[in-house]
Amino acid sequence: MVQVYRNCSLATMRENHGPYGLIDDAMLAVSGSRISWVGSAESIPDSVEGDVELWIDLDGATVTPALIDCHTHLVFGGNRALEFEDRLRGIDYSQASRNKGGIVATVAATRRLSEDELLDQALPRARRLLQDGATLVEIKSGYGLDIDTELKMLKVARRLPEHCGIEVATTWLAAHALPPEYRGQARRYLDEVAIAGLVKANELGLVDAVDAFCEGIAFSADELRPVFVKAAQLNLPLKIHAEQLSHCGGTALAAEFGALSADHLEYCRASDAEALAESGAVAVLLPGAFYTLGQYRKPPIQLFREFGVPIAIATDCNPGSSPLTSPLLAMNMACMLFGMTPQEALEGMTRNAARAIGRKQDLGTLAAGKRADFAVWDIDHPRELSYRMGFSPLRSLYRSGKNVL
Amino acid sequence: MVQVYRNCSLATMRENHGPYGLIDDAMLAVSGSRISWVGSAESIPDSVEGDVELWIDLDGATVTPALIDCHTHLVFGGNRALEFEDRLRGIDYSQASRNKGGIVATVAATRRLSEDELLDQALPRARRLLQDGATLVEIKSGYGLDIDTELKMLKVARRLPEHCGIEVATTWLAAHALPPEYRGQARRYLDEVAIAGLVKANELGLVDAVDAFCEGIAFSADELRPVFVKAAQLNLPLKIHAEQLSHCGGTALAAEFGALSADHLEYCRASDAEALAESGAVAVLLPGAFYTLGQYRKPPIQLFREFGVPIAIATDCNPGSSPLTSPLLAMNMACMLFGMTPQEALEGMTRNAARAIGRKQDLGTLAAGKRADFAVWDIDHPRELSYRMGFSPLRSLYRSGKNVL
Repeated sequence: MVQVYRNCSLATMRENHGPYGLIDDAMLAVSGSRISWVGSAESIPDSVEGDVELWIDLDGATVTPALIDCHTHLVFGGNRALEFEDRLRGIDYSQASRNKGGIVATVAATRRLSEDELLDQALPRARRLLQDGATLVEIKSGYGLDIDTELKMLKVARRLPEHCGIEVATTWLAAHALPPEYRGQARRYLDEVAIAGLVKANELGLVDAVDAFCEGIAFSADELRPVFVKAAQLNLPLKIHAEQLSHCGGTALAAEFGALSADHLEYCRASDAEALAESGAVAVLLPGAFYTLGQYRKPPIQLFREFGVPIAIATDCNPGSSPLTSPLLAMNMACMLFGMTPQEALEGMTRNAARAIGRKQDLGTLAAGKRADFAVWDIDHPRELSYRMGFSPLRSLYRSGKNVL
Repeated sequence: MVQVYRNCSLATMRENHGPYGLIDDAMLAVSGSRISWVGSAESIPDSVEGDVELWIDLDGATVTPALIDCHTHLVFGGNRALEFEDRLRGIDYSQASRNKGGIVATVAATRRLSEDELLDQALPRARRLLQDGATLVEIKSGYGLDIDTELKMLKVARRLPEHCGIEVATTWLAAHALPPEYRGQARRYLDEVAIAGLVKANELGLVDAVDAFCEGIAFSADELRPVFVKAAQLNLPLKIHAEQLSHCGGTALAAEFGALSADHLEYCRASDAEALAESGAVAVLLPGAFYTLGQYRKPPIQLFREFGVPIAIATDCNPGSSPLTSPLLAMNMACMLFGMTPQEALEGMTRNAARAIGRKQDLGTLAAGKRADFAVWDIDHPRELSYRMGFSPLRSLYRSGKNVL
């Protein structure tokens, strides 16, 4: 059945189609779960028009590809509001961390909770993403740091779509931090948990991609190499948390392995940007973490522009460094804190986000053949999506051609 | 009829009652539109218990006073997304301003639109405030800059409560900017529009308070003095936009006239803070504008603490410097950008906000005799209200004892 959405502006976000790939007075034809045609109303072909079974008047709304939140840690136990308050009250953070704050607190809560309990806590966050127009969210493990809990996190992530309209892409991130029981034994942890668990998770069909945290407080590029080698053997795409708090060489490692993306990148250098461009990797920027950590050094946007590195934006939703569940606010922050343009911010939540999770063939733009994931907004122009703070002008949302909100 | 809300934690926000005025395992008794008793469950007096007609189990929720957004420009025409985009694309802002961007664009749109059209545009913003737990919003005029349009803005503000559950306090702010037709004639404008219009607006019962913008790009303290004198003659409480972009003496003027509040205050000095403390005025801080304008100089929180100046927080919702409609996000920004504590942020949106609009007798805390305006949240502790970004854990909201969301 062909449905045509009419009387709207389409921000198709297609590359090389002008600002936002914008088409005024446009139509969007959907056949089943796919887009069958997009264009200006006057150019609709007879072959499309003849098959239309339902015309839907959007009354002047603006339509964009549905948003994609390509980097989150959405499944976790508890919250870290006490640690947040302690820091603001001037209680020393390293002291708080030793008092079982920090990631250790989240790991403990995540280990303790059942699948159902973790699902209950994650669902309101997933629903919040939908309210901002997102139909696909990437969710990482990494708060288990033992095989069973890492598997549990990905199982919970996989169950979210049964309870709300969002699709989930799962990422294995056991190489997120070293748990206390492996102190001083990073290589042993990576071998026994990150690599052995990955094999198991992959056998269970729980893994869409593999990620790792390359940082002084986590793992070195050398330590992570065996994880990347194993992922490559399993034909799993790679991602990396790199150059967030210092320059540790994670970006170069990602480029060497043809990773989908390198994420954070505040301390990324020109040579890294060049390597990303050559490898085709996406730079995923996470302004919510930059904001929450009170960082000053910004990712080198201008280098990414000059070298042609595609930039994606994500919420980095997590309980410690980015308790952010609004993709639109992440876009606003990308503009206000990193100096990106509203068009770059929207590309970063659509076309480039799709690419950052290996789905660029299928998602991220409005074009014939793509899956019919699109958002209908009560706005006059797509630039408005980055402009407001704390307000979603979403009218309705479609995934695979079906209304999900 | 007495209703008792039970099985909850109450963040009463009463002064000198410990952090957040918190009572665990508490009860809140409401009689008609008023709170008749609050306390721990075990201490409920027989006289209260005997009159209860309805027990309402809140299942462990946290209850706070309803939020109050004490400084907004919520009624305006159009938006300024194009100007926002132009700036981020590197187009010179003063040039954009000369091309009819800036406040002139908003004034033109606000003059052009009818009351009904302005109401249609303001309503989604007012509803968004409710979703974050606010039952009272202060709304200023100031985008008319002629008497008729200034009156129109306040009439629209007064109509909002007919369409959603929020209460509105109106503020006359014709002394917001000098319209082009009065260029070079600030005193004449203030006399013919700001003062003459105030008399008329007051006769029409449209004014709860009077505000003015004291700044190099607006009016000097000397120029504003006659406006303040007239407001005082009319027995109308005063507020001021002061020391936002430079030190211009607005705070001292506010203190001299016993104003309710001085707002913004990035360039406030120790002598100003002392004057505010002595006069009993509230310092209203607006982190959304600080963030959007990319300012570096922060309001002197530590001085306010030392001198005992009550601090309120507001969204400053406006189309140019703060397109923010989330009180919770303003609280998070007060913490992250200004270094306030979550308790100070919540005081700033409850008790001190009530004081900043002259309603401290009636609103802002949970105590016997106060109006029953309260918010029920799905959180474990009130500190969580400042911790998340882009997420409202509101379960339900009450104004004058009646459920409004």
